[in-house]
Amino acid sequence: MRDAYHEELDSVGADLVEMARLAGSAMGRATAALLDADLQLAQRVISADARINELHHALEEKAITLLARQQPVAGDLRTVVTSLRMSADLERAGDLARNVATIARLRHPVQAVPGDLHRTILEMGQLAQRLMAQAGEVLLTHDTVAALQMEKDDDRMDELHRTIFQHLMDERWKHGVETAVDVTLAARYYERFADHAVSVGHRVIYLVTGEHADVQPTPPPIFPTA
Amino acid sequence: MRDAYHEELDSVGADLVEMARLAGSAMGRATAALLDADLQLAQRVISADARINELHHALEEKAITLLARQQPVAGDLRTVVTSLRMSADLERAGDLARNVATIARLRHPVQAVPGDLHRTILEMGQLAQRLMAQAGEVLLTHDTVAALQMEKDDDRMDELHRTIFQHLMDERWKHGVETAVDVTLAARYYERFADHAVSVGHRVIYLVTGEHADVQPTPPPIFPTA
Repeated sequence: MRDAYHEELDSVGADLVEMARLAGSAMGRATAALLDADLQLAQRVISADARINELHHALEEKAITLLARQQPVAGDLRTVVTSLRMSADLERAGDLARNVATIARLRHPVQAVPGDLHRTILEMGQLAQRLMAQAGEVLLTHDTVAALQMEKDDDRMDELHRTIFQHLMDERWKHGVETAVDVTLAARYYERFADHAVSVGHRVIYLVTGEHADVQPTPPPIFPTA
Repeated sequence: MRDAYHEELDSVGADLVEMARLAGSAMGRATAALLDADLQLAQRVISADARINELHHALEEKAITLLARQQPVAGDLRTVVTSLRMSADLERAGDLARNVATIARLRHPVQAVPGDLHRTILEMGQLAQRLMAQAGEVLLTHDTVAALQMEKDDDRMDELHRTIFQHLMDERWKHGVETAVDVTLAARYYERFADHAVSVGHRVIYLVTGEHADVQPTPPPIFPTA
């Protein structure tokens, strides 16, 4: 019985890794759609979000069934409960990628992001995707050092977010209000997406160490790879 | 043992009600601070968010302890797991109220919201507060009819959100980009806050009926009032 149980627990872990992969991919594509004003790509990102939502709901059901049938305690219980939270983070990250794609779709065929902000938004998109890839890796490896390192990328994200605001607040801003609104929202979506990725990293640290804040790097397996 | 257990479950319910009260109050005050450019009030909202976060973390610990000690199944298990989700909704709602207050603080002594949007933002603030009050009541009463009615207020919120965007996109917008950015973010915070309130309502419906979507009104007590 314990074997079936750990198999179920592994499958929850695998679902989270897959959700992180899908969310990261969605944000990469959404960024391309936004910067290239690619309507078709935007549309695909928007449609693909349903898959992340499905995985999220299936994971919730799986976790509740697992709690009911196996009645886990201590570490295993925390793993299941924390998985539910990580799933919510990843589901929300998927929404945020969809939101970015929606801006692209709304403004098509116009480019929502003006040329002088392309590079900044591109970097935000790449950081977001990299952070989510790190979240997926940390879910697999439970490498708390890697999880802590995510904060450096997140700091860079915050810096870029501030850069965007400096541009917007600059009196020489010449792209009008509509573009300012799009850029404001897009920047916020990237920043929140990164927060959710970092949150997954933090939750893995919590699972490994039982600590909520900065912690020692000790990565035992909780969702062992198959 | 079952008695102590149901007492713990009640106390989780009472914490959620209190969190909803605090979040609603925070959004009411944040709106006043925003519309009156009241720095002191904004500061108090920002500081008070710590209390909601504390309740959230305490509730999470309580719920996990409850799962470990009492090993609930079926309905009780769903109640505990759903409570964790509602707590996350309410914690996030508190953050969004704090975000509104932060805009007021950033722009002080200037009013972040121009006069011709005062009424719309005021209505968004009032709707947000009312929706959260409804969420708190639904948590107490398990009145699924009232929970479903929240959607009407939420529709109105979406309508106001669109009104704000129409103003922003209007070529006659004369308040500049900085104000456009503030209004864009504030409007989004209200809309997300309302979503979290509605989400709490939906989760109560789910607890009562076991259904995720539109459901029959049948309100048995899950968190009985003391």
